[in-house]
Amino acid sequence: MTAFEVLSIGRVESPLLEREQAPRQGDEGAPPAWLVFEQTVLEGLRNLQRGDQVIVLTWLDRAQRDVLTVHPRGDPTRPPTGVFSTRSPERPNPIGLHRVQILDIDGARIQVSDLEALDGTPILDIKPVLGSLDER
Amino acid sequence: MTAFEVLSIGRVESPLLEREQAPRQGDEGAPPAWLVFEQTVLEGLRNLQRGDQVIVLTWLDRAQRDVLTVHPRGDPTRPPTGVFSTRSPERPNPIGLHRVQILDIDGARIQVSDLEALDGTPILDIKPVLGSLDER
Repeated sequence: MTAFEVLSIGRVESPLLEREQAPRQGDEGAPPAWLVFEQTVLEGLRNLQRGDQVIVLTWLDRAQRDVLTVHPRGDPTRPPTGVFSTRSPERPNPIGLHRVQILDIDGARIQVSDLEALDGTPILDIKPVLGSLDER
Repeated sequence: MTAFEVLSIGRVESPLLEREQAPRQGDEGAPPAWLVFEQTVLEGLRNLQRGDQVIVLTWLDRAQRDVLTVHPRGDPTRPPTGVFSTRSPERPNPIGLHRVQILDIDGARIQVSDLEALDGTPILDIKPVLGSLDER
Protein backbone atom coordinates (compact mmCIF):
# COMPACT_ATOMS: atom_id res chain seq x y z
CA MET A 1 0.00 0.00 0.00
CA THR A 2 1.34 3.43 -0.93
CA ALA A 3 1.79 5.81 2.01
CA PHE A 4 1.28 9.59 2.14
CA GLU A 5 2.11 12.08 4.85
CA VAL A 6 -0.65 14.08 6.55
CA LEU A 7 0.24 17.06 8.71
CA SER A 8 -1.34 18.13 11.98
CA ILE A 9 -2.55 21.70 11.31
CA GLY A 10 -3.77 22.10 14.91
CA ARG A 11 -5.02 20.33 18.03
CA VAL A 12 -8.33 19.88 19.83
CA GLU A 13 -8.72 21.40 23.30
CA SER A 14 -11.56 19.55 25.00
CA PRO A 15 -12.74 18.54 28.47
CA LEU A 16 -12.82 14.95 27.10
CA LEU A 17 -9.54 13.41 28.26
CA GLU A 18 -10.17 9.67 27.76
CA ARG A 19 -12.16 7.50 25.39
CA GLU A 20 -14.44 6.29 28.18
CA GLN A 21 -15.67 9.88 28.64
CA ALA A 22 -16.46 10.51 24.97
CA PRO A 23 -19.86 9.91 23.39
CA ARG A 24 -19.82 7.77 20.26
CA GLN A 25 -20.94 10.60 18.00
CA GLY A 26 -20.98 14.37 18.30
CA ASP A 27 -24.77 14.55 18.40
CA GLU A 28 -24.93 12.17 21.36
CA GLY A 29 -24.01 14.76 23.99
CA ALA A 30 -20.49 15.86 23.02
CA PRO A 31 -19.33 19.16 24.55
CA PRO A 32 -18.05 22.26 22.76
CA ALA A 33 -14.31 22.24 22.13
CA TRP A 34 -11.63 24.65 20.87
CA LEU A 35 -9.69 23.97 17.70
CA VAL A 36 -6.26 25.52 18.15
CA PHE A 37 -4.50 25.99 14.82
CA GLU A 38 -0.86 26.39 13.91
CA GLN A 39 0.06 29.99 13.04
CA THR A 40 1.31 28.71 9.67
CA VAL A 41 -2.25 28.00 8.44
CA LEU A 42 -3.90 31.15 9.84
CA GLU A 43 -4.43 32.67 6.39
CA GLY A 44 -6.51 29.67 5.35
CA LEU A 45 -8.96 30.31 8.23
CA ARG A 46 -9.71 33.92 7.43
CA ASN A 47 -13.18 33.54 5.90
CA LEU A 48 -14.62 31.23 8.55
CA GLN A 49 -17.39 32.87 10.56
CA ARG A 50 -19.34 32.31 13.71
CA GLY A 51 -22.44 30.24 12.87
CA ASP A 52 -20.84 28.39 9.94
CA GLN A 53 -21.60 24.67 9.62
CA VAL A 54 -18.32 22.91 8.91
CA ILE A 55 -16.83 19.44 8.68
CA VAL A 56 -13.70 18.94 10.77
CA LEU A 57 -11.35 16.10 9.87
CA THR A 58 -9.13 14.82 12.69
CA TRP A 59 -6.47 12.15 13.13
CA LEU A 60 -7.76 9.76 15.82
CA ASP A 61 -4.31 9.13 17.22
CA ARG A 62 -5.46 6.73 19.95
CA ALA A 63 -7.16 4.29 17.54
CA GLN A 64 -5.89 0.85 16.48
CA ARG A 65 -5.16 0.64 12.76
CA ASP A 66 -4.92 -3.12 12.31
CA VAL A 67 -8.62 -3.80 12.93
CA LEU A 68 -11.00 -4.69 10.05
CA THR A 69 -14.10 -5.86 11.98
CA VAL A 70 -15.69 -4.54 15.17
CA HIS A 71 -18.83 -5.07 17.24
CA PRO A 72 -20.89 -1.95 16.38
CA ARG A 73 -20.98 0.56 19.22
CA GLY A 74 -18.76 -1.80 21.26
CA ASP A 75 -21.79 -4.03 21.94
CA PRO A 76 -20.59 -7.68 22.08
CA THR A 77 -24.12 -8.94 21.34
CA ARG A 78 -23.93 -7.34 17.86
CA PRO A 79 -22.17 -9.46 15.22
CA PRO A 80 -18.68 -8.47 14.02
CA THR A 81 -19.07 -5.92 11.24
CA GLY A 82 -16.62 -4.62 8.61
CA VAL A 83 -15.20 -1.32 9.86
CA PHE A 84 -16.14 0.46 6.62
CA SER A 85 -19.82 -0.04 7.54
CA THR A 86 -19.22 1.59 10.95
CA ARG A 87 -17.96 4.87 12.37
CA SER A 88 -15.51 3.05 14.67
CA PRO A 89 -12.22 4.93 15.17
CA GLU A 90 -10.51 1.55 14.66
CA ARG A 91 -9.75 1.36 10.92
CA PRO A 92 -6.71 1.44 8.60
CA ASN A 93 -6.74 5.26 8.36
CA PRO A 94 -8.26 6.61 11.59
CA ILE A 95 -9.60 9.88 10.17
CA GLY A 96 -12.41 11.37 12.25
CA LEU A 97 -15.23 13.22 10.46
CA HIS A 98 -17.14 15.68 12.62
CA ARG A 99 -19.98 17.95 11.52
CA VAL A 100 -20.04 20.91 13.88
CA GLN A 101 -21.04 24.57 14.10
CA ILE A 102 -18.59 27.40 14.75
CA LEU A 103 -19.49 29.06 18.07
CA ASP A 104 -16.64 31.55 18.44
CA ILE A 105 -13.40 32.64 16.76
CA ASP A 106 -10.37 34.18 18.48
CA GLY A 107 -7.44 34.42 16.06
CA ALA A 108 -6.11 30.90 15.51
CA ARG A 109 -8.58 29.46 18.06
CA ILE A 110 -12.03 28.37 16.87
CA GLN A 111 -14.69 27.08 19.23
CA VAL A 112 -17.09 24.48 17.82
CA SER A 113 -20.16 22.64 19.09
CA ASP A 114 -20.66 18.91 19.67
CA LEU A 115 -17.14 17.54 19.20
CA GLU A 116 -16.52 13.99 20.46
CA ALA A 117 -12.76 14.06 19.69
CA LEU A 118 -10.47 13.83 22.73
CA ASP A 119 -8.24 16.58 24.08
CA GLY A 120 -5.02 16.76 22.08
CA THR A 121 -6.42 15.11 18.93
CA PRO A 122 -4.60 16.41 15.83
CA ILE A 123 -6.66 18.35 13.28
CA LEU A 124 -6.19 17.64 9.55
CA ASP A 125 -8.72 19.84 7.74
CA ILE A 126 -11.86 21.96 7.86
CA LYS A 127 -14.34 22.02 4.99
CA PRO A 128 -17.60 23.93 4.59
CA VAL A 129 -20.83 21.97 4.49
CA LEU A 130 -21.96 22.37 0.89
CA GLY A 131 -25.07 24.43 0.33
CA SER A 132 -27.33 24.19 -2.69
CA LEU A 133 -25.81 24.55 -6.15
CA ASP A 134 -26.66 28.25 -6.51
CA GLU A 135 -24.81 29.11 -3.28
CA ARG A 136 -21.43 27.71 -4.38
CA MET B 1 3.69 20.28 12.46
CA THR B 2 3.52 16.62 13.44
CA ALA B 3 3.20 14.22 10.51
CA PHE B 4 1.28 10.93 10.30
CA GLU B 5 1.24 8.28 7.61
CA VAL B 6 -1.96 7.48 5.71
CA LEU B 7 -2.17 4.37 3.56
CA SER B 8 -3.83 3.97 0.19
CA ILE B 9 -6.38 1.15 0.73
CA GLY B 10 -7.40 1.21 -2.94
CA ARG B 11 -7.66 3.29 -6.12
CA VAL B 12 -10.41 4.97 -8.13
CA GLU B 13 -11.13 3.67 -11.64
CA SER B 14 -12.90 6.47 -13.49
CA PRO B 15 -13.36 7.82 -17.02
CA LEU B 16 -12.12 11.17 -15.62
CA LEU B 17 -8.43 11.29 -16.53
CA GLU B 18 -7.57 14.98 -16.03
CA ARG B 19 -8.70 17.79 -13.77
CA GLU B 20 -10.14 19.76 -16.68
CA GLN B 21 -12.65 16.93 -17.25
CA ALA B 22 -13.85 16.72 -13.67
CA PRO B 23 -16.86 18.62 -12.32
CA ARG B 24 -16.17 20.61 -9.16
CA GLN B 25 -18.47 18.47 -7.01
CA GLY B 26 -19.96 15.01 -7.34
CA ASP B 27 -23.50 16.34 -7.71
CA GLU B 28 -22.51 18.55 -10.65
CA GLY B 29 -22.50 15.77 -13.24
CA ALA B 30 -19.77 13.38 -12.07
CA PRO B 31 -19.91 9.88 -13.54
CA PRO B 32 -20.07 6.55 -11.72
CA ALA B 33 -16.66 5.10 -10.84
CA TRP B 34 -15.23 1.88 -9.45
CA LEU B 35 -13.39 1.79 -6.14
CA VAL B 36 -10.81 -1.00 -6.39
CA PHE B 37 -9.61 -2.08 -2.95
CA GLU B 38 -6.47 -3.86 -1.81
CA GLN B 39 -7.11 -7.50 -0.92
CA THR B 40 -5.67 -6.78 2.53
CA VAL B 41 -8.76 -4.72 3.54
CA LEU B 42 -11.41 -7.00 1.99
CA GLU B 43 -12.71 -8.15 5.38
CA GLY B 44 -13.52 -4.56 6.30
CA LEU B 45 -15.83 -4.23 3.28
CA ARG B 46 -17.98 -7.25 3.97
CA ASN B 47 -21.11 -5.51 5.26
CA LEU B 48 -21.36 -2.85 2.56
CA GLN B 49 -24.42 -3.30 0.36
CA ARG B 50 -25.78 -2.07 -2.91
CA GLY B 51 -27.86 1.06 -2.25
CA ASP B 52 -25.86 2.17 0.80
CA GLN B 53 -25.14 5.90 1.11
CA VAL B 54 -21.48 6.25 2.07
CA ILE B 55 -18.77 8.86 2.44
CA VAL B 56 -15.57 8.08 0.56
CA LEU B 57 -12.35 9.78 1.66
CA THR B 58 -9.64 10.04 -0.99
CA TRP B 59 -6.12 11.45 -1.22
CA LEU B 60 -6.19 14.12 -3.95
CA ASP B 61 -2.69 13.35 -5.10
CA ARG B 62 -2.63 15.95 -7.88
CA ALA B 63 -3.39 18.90 -5.56
CA GLN B 64 -0.95 21.58 -4.36
CA ARG B 65 -0.45 21.52 -0.60
CA ASP B 66 1.21 24.91 -0.08
CA VAL B 67 -1.87 26.98 -0.94
CA LEU B 68 -3.90 28.77 1.79
CA THR B 69 -6.16 31.03 -0.32
CA VAL B 70 -7.92 30.41 -3.63
CA HIS B 71 -10.45 32.08 -5.89
CA PRO B 72 -13.62 30.04 -5.22
CA ARG B 73 -14.49 27.72 -8.10
CA GLY B 74 -11.42 28.99 -9.95
CA ASP B 75 -13.27 32.23 -10.78
CA PRO B 76 -10.73 35.10 -10.80
CA THR B 77 -13.52 37.66 -10.28
CA ARG B 78 -14.22 36.17 -6.83
CA PRO B 79 -11.94 37.46 -4.04
CA PRO B 80 -9.21 35.20 -2.63
CA THR B 81 -10.74 33.04 0.08
CA GLY B 82 -9.18 30.92 2.84
CA VAL B 83 -9.09 27.31 1.66
CA PHE B 84 -10.86 26.07 4.81
CA SER B 85 -13.97 27.96 3.64
CA THR B 86 -13.84 26.20 0.26
CA ARG B 87 -13.86 22.68 -1.12
CA SER B 88 -10.75 23.35 -3.23
CA PRO B 89 -8.44 20.32 -3.53
CA GLU B 90 -5.57 22.78 -2.87
CA ARG B 91 -5.06 22.70 0.93
CA PRO B 92 -2.44 21.47 3.44
CA ASN B 93 -3.99 17.97 3.62
CA PRO B 94 -5.70 17.28 0.28
CA ILE B 95 -8.30 14.81 1.56
CA GLY B 96 -11.32 14.50 -0.71
CA LEU B 97 -14.75 13.94 0.85
CA HIS B 98 -17.33 12.39 -1.46
CA ARG B 99 -20.89 11.44 -0.58
CA VAL B 100 -21.96 8.70 -2.98
CA GLN B 101 -24.27 5.71 -3.31
CA ILE B 102 -23.09 2.14 -3.83
CA LEU B 103 -24.35 0.91 -7.22
CA ASP B 104 -22.68 -2.49 -7.43
CA ILE B 105 -20.25 -4.74 -5.55
CA ASP B 106 -17.96 -7.36 -7.09
CA GLY B 107 -15.51 -8.69 -4.49
CA ALA B 108 -12.97 -5.97 -3.80
CA ARG B 109 -14.50 -3.70 -6.49
CA ILE B 110 -17.31 -1.35 -5.53
CA GLN B 111 -19.09 0.86 -8.05
CA VAL B 112 -20.37 4.20 -6.76
CA SER B 113 -22.39 7.09 -8.20
CA ASP B 114 -21.36 10.69 -8.76
CA LEU B 115 -17.62 10.59 -8.05
CA GLU B 116 -15.58 13.59 -9.23
CA ALA B 117 -12.21 12.06 -8.20
CA LEU B 118 -9.81 11.35 -11.07
CA ASP B 119 -8.74 7.92 -12.32
CA GLY B 120 -6.00 6.52 -10.10
CA THR B 121 -6.85 8.64 -7.04
CA PRO B 122 -5.88 6.77 -3.85
CA ILE B 123 -8.71 5.83 -1.46
CA LEU B 124 -8.24 6.35 2.30
CA ASP B 125 -11.54 5.34 3.91
CA ILE B 126 -15.24 4.61 3.55
CA LYS B 127 -17.74 5.55 6.25
CA PRO B 128 -21.51 5.07 6.40
CA VAL B 129 -23.72 8.16 6.31
CA LEU B 130 -25.14 8.27 9.82
CA GLY B 131 -28.85 7.61 10.13
CA SER B 132 -31.03 8.80 12.99
CA LEU B 133 -30.01 7.91 16.56
CA ASP B 134 -32.28 4.86 16.83
CA GLU B 135 -30.70 3.27 13.71
CA ARG B 136 -27.11 3.24 15.06
